[in-house]
Amino acid sequence: MKDFVFSNTTKVYFGKDQLHHLSEEIAKFGKKVLLVYGGGSIKKIGLYDKVIAELKKADMTVFELGGVEPNPHHTTVNKGAALCKKEGIDVLLAVGGGSTIDATKAMAATAKYEGDDCWDIITGKAFVPDNLPIVAVLTLSATGSEMDIGGVISNVELNEKQPIFGPTLRPNVSFLDPTNTFSVNAYQTASGSADIMAHVFDVAYFTDQEEMDMLTRMQEEVLKTVVKYAPVAIEKPDDYEARSNLMWASSWALNGFLFSGVSQDAIAHMIEHELSAFYNITHGHGLAIIIPRWLTYILSDKTAPKIKRFGVNVLGVDASLSDMDGAKAAIAALEKFYFETLGLQSRLSDLGIDDKNFALMAKKACSAKGKLVGFTTLTPADVEEIFKMSL
Amino acid sequence: MKDFVFSNTTKVYFGKDQLHHLSEEIAKFGKKVLLVYGGGSIKKIGLYDKVIAELKKADMTVFELGGVEPNPHHTTVNKGAALCKKEGIDVLLAVGGGSTIDATKAMAATAKYEGDDCWDIITGKAFVPDNLPIVAVLTLSATGSEMDIGGVISNVELNEKQPIFGPTLRPNVSFLDPTNTFSVNAYQTASGSADIMAHVFDVAYFTDQEEMDMLTRMQEEVLKTVVKYAPVAIEKPDDYEARSNLMWASSWALNGFLFSGVSQDAIAHMIEHELSAFYNITHGHGLAIIIPRWLTYILSDKTAPKIKRFGVNVLGVDASLSDMDGAKAAIAALEKFYFETLGLQSRLSDLGIDDKNFALMAKKACSAKGKLVGFTTLTPADVEEIFKMSL
Repeated sequence: MKDFVFSNTTKVYFGKDQLHHLSEEIAKFGKKVLLVYGGGSIKKIGLYDKVIAELKKADMTVFELGGVEPNPHHTTVNKGAALCKKEGIDVLLAVGGGSTIDATKAMAATAKYEGDDCWDIITGKAFVPDNLPIVAVLTLSATGSEMDIGGVISNVELNEKQPIFGPTLRPNVSFLDPTNTFSVNAYQTASGSADIMAHVFDVAYFTDQEEMDMLTRMQEEVLKTVVKYAPVAIEKPDDYEARSNLMWASSWALNGFLFSGVSQDAIAHMIEHELSAFYNITHGHGLAIIIPRWLTYILSDKTAPKIKRFGVNVLGVDASLSDMDGAKAAIAALEKFYFETLGLQSRLSDLGIDDKNFALMAKKACSAKGKLVGFTTLTPADVEEIFKMSL
Repeated sequence: MKDFVFSNTTKVYFGKDQLHHLSEEIAKFGKKVLLVYGGGSIKKIGLYDKVIAELKKADMTVFELGGVEPNPHHTTVNKGAALCKKEGIDVLLAVGGGSTIDATKAMAATAKYEGDDCWDIITGKAFVPDNLPIVAVLTLSATGSEMDIGGVISNVELNEKQPIFGPTLRPNVSFLDPTNTFSVNAYQTASGSADIMAHVFDVAYFTDQEEMDMLTRMQEEVLKTVVKYAPVAIEKPDDYEARSNLMWASSWALNGFLFSGVSQDAIAHMIEHELSAFYNITHGHGLAIIIPRWLTYILSDKTAPKIKRFGVNVLGVDASLSDMDGAKAAIAALEKFYFETLGLQSRLSDLGIDDKNFALMAKKACSAKGKLVGFTTLTPADVEEIFKMSL
């Protein structure tokens, strides 16, 4: 395995009675806070009021930016960054799911950029080594943004969705209260759960790199956690045990530990990002549609053993099958989980997507190196074929 | 499960070609370093010279304190702390196993204490909220001190062994190079491996508290990692895969993640500490002797299901057995692993220990609350009986 550095500086308050620490934590960073949130669900569940009460307790001056989109727009990021500069914001507080936290991270970096367009940073035209501090209150178990170093921002004018990364973009403090996910509906719970699994698949599990055995098995435990608890949370949205396990699984799927010593290939993510860039679909749902087709497309004597192992260890596939048959059974079991147990629609056409942009999307997915390098290397023609299989 | 805070600030450089980062890391903390080490094995393996070269590269002024004992003495800690004060040390560098790192932590705290005896801090007579920064280069996979908040110090005059804890006692930076454990002999590898397992058992797995399911299964993966790789490392000391897995397992067994939401009962540790306090035996070996007898002593309808589960999931015990029979088979399999596979002697009498101090040791083990509270509550009479069973 490769040498690696592990460092995760996010302080996590986990549980149902932790938000009262928000005032003391936020006050450490200054007096002026920009509160960032999405479509307003945090008002419906009463979280907005609780957060405001904490900020008042800390005697903070509060500025607000609501309405962050799912697949957040770079223009919204720019708006937030401009507000930070104009008002001299000391700290950003993201209250929401991955989109809100991702947008907040990009705002925090752009606020330290002499230019005004976050897209310069995201595309590597500008390098900004620093950012304003970030505190997060999580409301959706999915992206892992609450404890990771990245975010993903969409440029709707260009139909592009690109990541922003940086070691200082990890939230300084994150509040993870499973009860804040009780109101997440079945569809978003399913999509978020598919996203958690995809992080395990994509950053570590389905790789041709040499891994550390202990971590491979822990990755399987995260996958098994999702397989066990996502259906429970869908059936009984206020099941604290299920919501807790999903929430902690979401953080650990992507916070660095499980892929110690392995470079992140993120192939399925690179393919899916084109879907949500072009069609603004829910990221986790897009991943659930793509991943079984991707695994089917790359199935070979080389990839079959690991795919079978996944099926045996996570989904109860018969261990006595041959590698190839076991791998096929694993993919079938995964499809069954996504499309029957979680109830996600199985085809891009179900989401109103046709094949007209597939060639362009495939090319864009491979734009960084002309191909996607990982578990198996994919050319644009391969990616286009995977889109077609998903139609 | 209980609410919890997770925060682990240690930056870990893991791998065989990472020590060249020592100079840049140590220089962040100042110019004067106290290099702390044990009996000199770091000179034999050439690590001492490499460390000194890094410190020279960083233009550090180096002070040294070698000879830290296994079960480190409070007098050695006091010597180091006095040196820190006298020379105005900026940062401590521990190069060694858990004993060296534990002693260094206690020195780092005592250096900030107006008194001169670390025992005041350890016994709670004095409170010192701060300490000098700590960098560690690990040479033994066992205690987890490289990424945790505690240490254990012995007072040989009093026959006492007590912990020191504090959130700032986590090393700022730790270097984990599995090749530095290639020269660890079979006995120390076995004892260290037993220590890793004991941390999982003691801080989380054998508990009557409500746990998070994902974490219980991850604890089992750490245990399985030790069961798989300790025999490999004993058989083939320079097996990089085995040494890597053991090293990362040692850090994660005790760094906070696996016992999120569970208070640490540490019952077996409390019992064993009396053994190493009175007889200066190797801590991990003492734990291996005590734990199967402890589990046998507390075996009941209440404890049997979890003990059986351990046997089934970690040691391959037949899942179809009854809870009670499965638990008995689990304990037998654990004894077989410790005393046959790892080759550790199985009885206190093998180590020259007799029963003359058992009553006093049992009383001391329970001194904090008059009993040990956890998986099952133990009185001094219970602890004495466990010592007798281990004789």
